[in-house]
Amino acid sequence: MRSAGKRAVVLLSGGLDSATALAVARDEGYECHALTVDYGQRHRTELAAAARVAKAMDVPMRTVAVDLRAIGGSALTDDIDVPEAGGEGIPATYVPARNTVLLGLALGLAETLEATDIFTGMNAVDYSGYPDCRPEFVAAFERLAALGTKAGAEGGRFHVHTPLMELSKAEIVALGSGLGMDYGLTVSCYQADEAGRACGRCDSCRFRAEGFRAAGLPDPTRYR
Amino acid sequence: MRSAGKRAVVLLSGGLDSATALAVARDEGYECHALTVDYGQRHRTELAAAARVAKAMDVPMRTVAVDLRAIGGSALTDDIDVPEAGGEGIPATYVPARNTVLLGLALGLAETLEATDIFTGMNAVDYSGYPDCRPEFVAAFERLAALGTKAGAEGGRFHVHTPLMELSKAEIVALGSGLGMDYGLTVSCYQADEAGRACGRCDSCRFRAEGFRAAGLPDPTRYR
Repeated sequence: MRSAGKRAVVLLSGGLDSATALAVARDEGYECHALTVDYGQRHRTELAAAARVAKAMDVPMRTVAVDLRAIGGSALTDDIDVPEAGGEGIPATYVPARNTVLLGLALGLAETLEATDIFTGMNAVDYSGYPDCRPEFVAAFERLAALGTKAGAEGGRFHVHTPLMELSKAEIVALGSGLGMDYGLTVSCYQADEAGRACGRCDSCRFRAEGFRAAGLPDPTRYR
Repeated sequence: MRSAGKRAVVLLSGGLDSATALAVARDEGYECHALTVDYGQRHRTELAAAARVAKAMDVPMRTVAVDLRAIGGSALTDDIDVPEAGGEGIPATYVPARNTVLLGLALGLAETLEATDIFTGMNAVDYSGYPDCRPEFVAAFERLAALGTKAGAEGGRFHVHTPLMELSKAEIVALGSGLGMDYGLTVSCYQADEAGRACGRCDSCRFRAEGFRAAGLPDPTRYR
């Protein structure tokens, strides 16, 4: 399906999921604008990965810096240990209100670009512990966007596309591979080293490796 | 009314409205935590004003930097002229998705502090042109907050207090003055100089001056 001339803002983190969301948006015919948010995350190699992915996909990318460390409360931005094994409930890596802020920034860029479509790699399966990765949250955000924007006030609406929401990691990997995504460019590890090499032990590494295994695809991840 | 031990995050811009919201929150017995967002606004003297207000009210203040200039689209962050007279429709000073991002950051801090109350100086009367200053927008944000947070997922809820929503500028000035707020500390002008002195001509200056006049109170604003 191609929708000629339609623009979309794609939240691009440099991880596997958002790269797949970008591949889907491009495949659906959107003129894509990547937005990478530098929120003081510890896995800063993700930012370099996002730039690699945007370049490979020939998509313009903007980076917005927001210092979520000033707010605190998460293992991803604070100096506390990233847990290595999966547990019950909401993970320590949950960043307070992160997706509200990220989607808010994407919405701002969409308004500036006169786009009404936003793509994210949000997923409710592997990370069901994050409250702000659920379909109800996305629906509530779309409603907020319609009420809180100039375009919305003038009768328009915003659509937050979450093409990966209900997919397993194996299905995501198969989807992106089919669209030509080179996952060797992406970094998922919460504690990748400066060269972007993964630890192979954190939750994110485990989900990712299992995804390639279950999809029957070679794992291009560089481990240290 | 005092609610002992209840914490609130107060979005403090350094302007007249948010200072009044802080005075109201304190008067209602909340332990207040001010959050000032440095979003690359041209009226940077507002940030110094916010610090003065927080100090005078003996309230801790955090500053979060988010570079909304990377998103663009507004006279407040771009290098385009601030209009001097009021016009029809949505003003050029509207910042795309600003309140979504600001409330998102306040929500993140509230989660970190285990607070479920947020106060803002949002007002639907003088600035009715801003779509993200309407009661419907606030209600939609509260719903988003309940769905997108750890506390919300565990059954809590968030309340976004907008004590000024339906007040005229004169009523706001009268309210804050009655609570002892020294408005000489605040800066409302969109193009205040480095010393915080106002231009007296922009929309924001005109609304403010008219507020003091209509309330029959002396105007402590320093004009240049």
